[in-house]
Order: sequence, then C-alpha cells, then structure tokens
Amino acid sequence: MSKFDKPLDGAAFDQIFRQARTYNQFADRPVEDSVLRELYDLMKWGPTSANMSPTRLVFVKSAEAKKKLEPVLDEGNREKTMKAPVTAIVGYDMEFYEKLPFLFPHTDARSWFAGKSDEQLEPAALRNSSLQGAYLIIAARALGLDCGPMSGFDNAKLDEAFFAGTRVRSNFIINLGYGQEDLFPRSPRLAFDEAARIA
Amino acid sequence: MSKFDKPLDGAAFDQIFRQARTYNQFADRPVEDSVLRELYDLMKWGPTSANMSPTRLVFVKSAEAKKKLEPVLDEGNREKTMKAPVTAIVGYDMEFYEKLPFLFPHTDARSWFAGKSDEQLEPAALRNSSLQGAYLIIAARALGLDCGPMSGFDNAKLDEAFFAGTRVRSNFIINLGYGQEDLFPRSPRLAFDEAARIA
Repeated sequence: MSKFDKPLDGAAFDQIFRQARTYNQFADRPVEDSVLRELYDLMKWGPTSANMSPTRLVFVKSAEAKKKLEPVLDEGNREKTMKAPVTAIVGYDMEFYEKLPFLFPHTDARSWFAGKSDEQLEPAALRNSSLQGAYLIIAARALGLDCGPMSGFDNAKLDEAFFAGTRVRSNFIINLGYGQEDLFPRSPRLAFDEAARIA
Repeated sequence: MSKFDKPLDGAAFDQIFRQARTYNQFADRPVEDSVLRELYDLMKWGPTSANMSPTRLVFVKSAEAKKKLEPVLDEGNREKTMKAPVTAIVGYDMEFYEKLPFLFPHTDARSWFAGKSDEQLEPAALRNSSLQGAYLIIAARALGLDCGPMSGFDNAKLDEAFFAGTRVRSNFIINLGYGQEDLFPRSPRLAFDEAARIA
C-alpha cells in the first residue's frame, strides 16, 4: 500500500512547479559531478513504458566539450549555453530494446521492438525519453538546481559531434546551474477549462 | 535570482521519485474534482518549448465515460482501468500553435508552426505533451496520489471516442488514485555509467 497519500508542503510545490522558472543565466557556482550523479539517481526512478528507460545523457561540462557543442546551437542559444555550468544533452537510444532483458526481466519485451523500423520505434523512444527529460528537470529543481531547457539546435550535427558510432539521437538539451537573473514576468498558462475536462 | 538553491528533504524525494511506484490497484477512495483541478494547476507550470503547452487532458471518471474507454484498451489493461477512480487521457492538440499568441505573446511564435504538415508538427507536439505527461505524474505524486501510466490501447479508436471533431491525438493514459496493493520488487534501472557520461 502506498505510504504517500498526503500532499508535500507548499514550499516543495513552489520549488518544483509553482515558482520554478526557466533560467538563461546562472551564478558563478559549479555543479559538482557528485550532484550530477545524484540527479541521475533521482530521475532514473521515473516510470517509462515497460521500464524501457531509453534516455542517454551527456553532461557537457569541460571547456573542450562545450567547444564541440557551440557550433551546433542556434545562434541565440550560444552565449548563454557556453556560460552555463553544465548542459545536459537528453538523447535516446534507438536500440533501447537491447536493455529490456535486464530492465523488464519478467517477460520477453525485447521481442516487442527488435527488428522494427526506425519509423516504428521513434514514437516510443521519443515519448519515453521526453518523459525522462521532464523527470530530469523536476529532479534538478528538487535538488536546488535551475534549468534552461532548449530545442534550438541542429539535431543531426549534435548527434554527429556527441553520438557518432551509436544509435543515440538527441531529443533536447538543458542548461543546468544555480539560476541568477532578473526574470521577465511569467508567461501565462491555459486555464483548466481550456486544456482539460472531467468526463 | 532563484530562491530555491537547496535540496528538498529526503521524504519528498521518496514520495516523488525514490519510493514512488506504478500502481495497478487503488484504494476505494474517490479522487475529488477539486484535486484534479489542483493537479492541473501544478503540472501546467512545467516548461515546454516556447511555452506551447500542447497537452489536452480528459479525466475519465463517470461510469459512462469509463464505458467509452473500456473497448479501446488492450485486454490486459481493462479491468484495472475500469476499477481506477480516474483515468487521465494525455492528448496533444495538433493545432497547439493557435494558442501561441496568448501563451508566448512577445513574438509571433504561431508563424513558426502554422501551415506545417502533420509530419513536421508531430515531433514537437509529442515531445512537449510527453513532458507535460511526466509533469502530471510527478505532480500527482506530490499531491499524494499514485499513478498507473500505460500505452496499451488503440490510439485511433480512443481519439474517435474522446476527441472526434478536434485535432487532438492521444499520447498515453494514466490511472489515478490512492495506490493499494502488494507490489512486486522494483524493476532495476541502468547505472549512471550505462546511461550517462560527464564530458
């Protein structure tokens, strides 16, 4: 039976959802490798279809790796990304099914996917890697980090620079650090009745 | 400057990630409409590309709506879903760009998408609706609910039953309630070094 049937406190809601914001500028404070490992050890628990966990991450942190990232970014995303303490590349492995005998051992889930075309595999890989990207954003916030997620880059060029020789494809990227800037007022959201209904 | 640069406490990590589990059976305790509205009012704050917020939700709760859902589910998902207090259908509006003048008012983001083919729009819609589906899962857990997410249903039939006459497409569905069952031991996750690297 679930032990967790009470809401978290309001400060936690503020930190992970209500007052969390997308940041473009970060304080001059490093993000330790140990924090990146803690981050993975939280986000990995989020659910995916058949536990397929297709996400493959590169935490771009060194000057050398940053240099490789810079030219694949849209021009408007370059300066802020070069200045961010870390940029997480959220990719997905098109051969995710090779891990299913380990990840989903109670049945032959590999056979549901092996041999299928890229076109057939892509929606499941993209869906579940996006779920995991969102878990990463919320886990980062829960750890006291701030995020600047982006889709503005050349996916094919990024894949060539970071995933050559593999079947991993980039999904989106996330600048990570401790947010520091005067933010614009928050963009609006759709009201419940515009986005949802109870049937 | 971000006010949130400290980790949440361990109990919060347990509730939303470390000890949260996927549930198939739920306690005989209703999920009030007011809780579904709170849930939306948390998850809506999660970030999406250009704030596009493509997700459209149906919270299936009435006996009548459940009856409409039942035949579109894979057989193995029927009984548990019929018994769940609520099933959230996470869909995405292929015409999400029509809301961009409201959601992203500082530039003409509508023109980045309007007139594009379904094939061109689908990755952005699927990616961002999946992010929002993950925000919903974490927000539900943060509110003390438990989730049973699933992809095992006929998307085209579900769309016909719940989204006829619109451009909304189903992504995945999530049973919601207060979890109650003896769970199997947890499935493993990939170690950091299998899924991530620091570059």
